Amino acid sequence: MQNKIDLTIFRHGTGLLPSVSVDCVIFGFHDSQLKVLLLQPKGSCNKMLPGGFVQLSESLNEAAQRVLQERAGVKEIYLEQFYTFGAPNRTDDTIHKRYFNTIPIDLDENDWILKRFVSIGYYALTDFTKVKPTPDVLSDSCDWYDVYQLSELAFDHQEMVERALKTLRSKLDSDLVGFNLLPEVFTMQDLQNLYETILNEALLRTNFQRKILNLNILERLEKKMTGAANKAPYLYKFKK
Amino acid sequence: MQNKIDLTIFRHGTGLLPSVSVDCVIFGFHDSQLKVLLLQPKGSCNKMLPGGFVQLSESLNEAAQRVLQERAGVKEIYLEQFYTFGAPNRTDDTIHKRYFNTIPIDLDENDWILKRFVSIGYYALTDFTKVKPTPDVLSDSCDWYDVYQLSELAFDHQEMVERALKTLRSKLDSDLVGFNLLPEVFTMQDLQNLYETILNEALLRTNFQRKILNLNILERLEKKMTGAANKAPYLYKFKK
Repeated sequence: MQNKIDLTIFRHGTGLLPSVSVDCVIFGFHDSQLKVLLLQPKGSCNKMLPGGFVQLSESLNEAAQRVLQERAGVKEIYLEQFYTFGAPNRTDDTIHKRYFNTIPIDLDENDWILKRFVSIGYYALTDFTKVKPTPDVLSDSCDWYDVYQLSELAFDHQEMVERALKTLRSKLDSDLVGFNLLPEVFTMQDLQNLYETILNEALLRTNFQRKILNLNILERLEKKMTGAANKAPYLYKFKK
Repeated sequence: MQNKIDLTIFRHGTGLLPSVSVDCVIFGFHDSQLKVLLLQPKGSCNKMLPGGFVQLSESLNEAAQRVLQERAGVKEIYLEQFYTFGAPNRTDDTIHKRYFNTIPIDLDENDWILKRFVSIGYYALTDFTKVKPTPDVLSDSCDWYDVYQLSELAFDHQEMVERALKTLRSKLDSDLVGFNLLPEVFTMQDLQNLYETILNEALLRTNFQRKILNLNILERLEKKMTGAANKAPYLYKFKK
């Protein structure tokens, strides 16, 4: 079942804050794969991030949560603001026009949605096997795509993904525990795989281990049970 | 001489992006003091950050640079976006009304400036002895105030200062060289003073020295010439 959306808002913007939108960069990690959640809009548009507008009565954070749920059927993900995109030419009217012709809605050149918008970017990192996205009525599909194999995206959404990824990388050490991406107990190699996937580079095992232990966020448990006990890796869990 | 500003924009917002403003948190450091640049608006308003609106043809970064120059007479400072503030009730209409009564401009309750605004926060860190602010026509003064002794600010500007300070602290290690706040050569104690002032806490000398040397951004020079050569501290400069 598709999510409901009120199409008349695109004509007049009634009840919405002019000039302001939100876009959500939802990263998904699992088994050494890093993906991002994208909508395939109806018509022949490039894929895009789940985005939308801000109601007059809601905060930006509330708008981002609602938009993600309405457009992608995804809820209960903690979203964090990472940057606001405001180049004067960042949205291309021809994309919106093609998009709405497909619905079909005829847009007048003075319509609300064709004006300049500033977009506030939100991001999150989750386990993509635990999130089943649902497209809204404006989209043919909503799915996970490999971050490192993206085709061209609509508007400035490629720049949004790149900047969100940069933010994610810079905050990985401090926000790691909160992302909840590993099982309760894991090996150092599991954690290194997570880092290597998000940083998109190979790391030296000894350096990585030293750095992570210095963060003082891990509790070492017993060794993992394997056939060869002397080679068995230790298990860890995050400190409470 | 005061900077020029076109007052009619507050009635109709002609040529400006609706709902969007920028605010600038300019930190100033010198001799173990951390200050922030504030305007004292005419009338009996609380002090406020230099802020303003976005022209339809300019980017958000350009708007922040222009606004800082128009409202505080400050230019050629590198500004970085840190957060966008968008609580529905973040601006209080009574402040705007009191403010414009003083000019005086009578505002109708439907006037452009009394609608909801989202504000994009920009911040910078500079040496406050090198910046001579000039107030605009809406303000009695523009000056530097101790960050740790602020009286209540207008709107949500206290929250803006706090969040900008948090961002500054989290990026100090990586952005230190760019801030250009120390003389070309300096002692480890000079650098520690800078950190202690911005973090607002005392640091252990040995821990601080180890941490900074591990950042690998300093080049050690000769010892500082003093009477007692064996106690003289080393001088450092930032690596190119």
